[in-house]
Amino acid sequence: MLAEARALLEEGGAASLSLREIARRVGVAAPSAYHHFSNLEAIAVALAEVGFDELAAKLEDAPTNAKGQLLGTGRAYVQFALGNPGLYRLMFGDGFRSASSESQIVRALRQRSYQAVKAGLRKRLPEDQVATGALFLWSLVHGLALLLIDGQVENDVDIDETITNILRLSGTGLPSSQ
Amino acid sequence: MLAEARALLEEGGAASLSLREIARRVGVAAPSAYHHFSNLEAIAVALAEVGFDELAAKLEDAPTNAKGQLLGTGRAYVQFALGNPGLYRLMFGDGFRSASSESQIVRALRQRSYQAVKAGLRKRLPEDQVATGALFLWSLVHGLALLLIDGQVENDVDIDETITNILRLSGTGLPSSQ
Repeated sequence: MLAEARALLEEGGAASLSLREIARRVGVAAPSAYHHFSNLEAIAVALAEVGFDELAAKLEDAPTNAKGQLLGTGRAYVQFALGNPGLYRLMFGDGFRSASSESQIVRALRQRSYQAVKAGLRKRLPEDQVATGALFLWSLVHGLALLLIDGQVENDVDIDETITNILRLSGTGLPSSQ
Repeated sequence: MLAEARALLEEGGAASLSLREIARRVGVAAPSAYHHFSNLEAIAVALAEVGFDELAAKLEDAPTNAKGQLLGTGRAYVQFALGNPGLYRLMFGDGFRSASSESQIVRALRQRSYQAVKAGLRKRLPEDQVATGALFLWSLVHGLALLLIDGQVENDVDIDETITNILRLSGTGLPSSQ
């Protein structure tokens, strides 16, 4: 059922999720679908869990090294969002705002992703700067991912090159004329 | 009608917008509401226009100087989102994905905001780096704004100080141990 729900999500977004349609695709009667998930919100929470679990695994597996750790992690993050736009939006509240913010499991999985970023930052930042550095990076990749999947970026540069260029700036900062 | 639609949006999000409810609040019959807006999508587009117009004005009015231009602009951006979370989400597609991406007026107004950022960057970057710098900054403030309004940031630091710290990193980059 979750696999069908996920496919439906990528086809039509959170608004297209319905227990009846998921049951139809799985080939069971709607009442038996309710045996597994009491309502659509429960499916949304389960999907958000799947998504944050996959995202954390990708970040943990991203190629790392002492100098360049952020680039691999950042690219893995944005590529996950580009590959799963419907799921990514749902993970951050699209259509089911409370599903992503109230589930303890989702919160714990989100923290796991965040820890993967922080572990990299600890190699280069003193402990008291790690939280701010992690929020800086997370804001950057979250914003870039959403602008890209929402079709808000109008440029003619290769998308992978764009991602790399943006992530490089997170290490150097914007040059200053001063 | 737009003022009532906007209030409704901030109370319950994009999903709570309905022409019938807007008409009820304005105190007119639903059919006469349809005289002004043929459907809910038209109201969403009009709201997105209002939002991008206000955002562009805030960015253009943000305190600037040759050195610190980005901080004022970035703070104005994030504060606009925090002050108008429902409108901000709708401007970026929440509930009405096509409304924000297909309206020519919305696209033009979004470009106006983007130009305000680019104008600041031209003071410090060569022309061929302005587009990447602007996307870097926009990704950062968009991601930070959404994480904050979606309640995804768990920290105990003052929100305004958090915003300032994150924006400062956009100028310096993350420190490196190398």
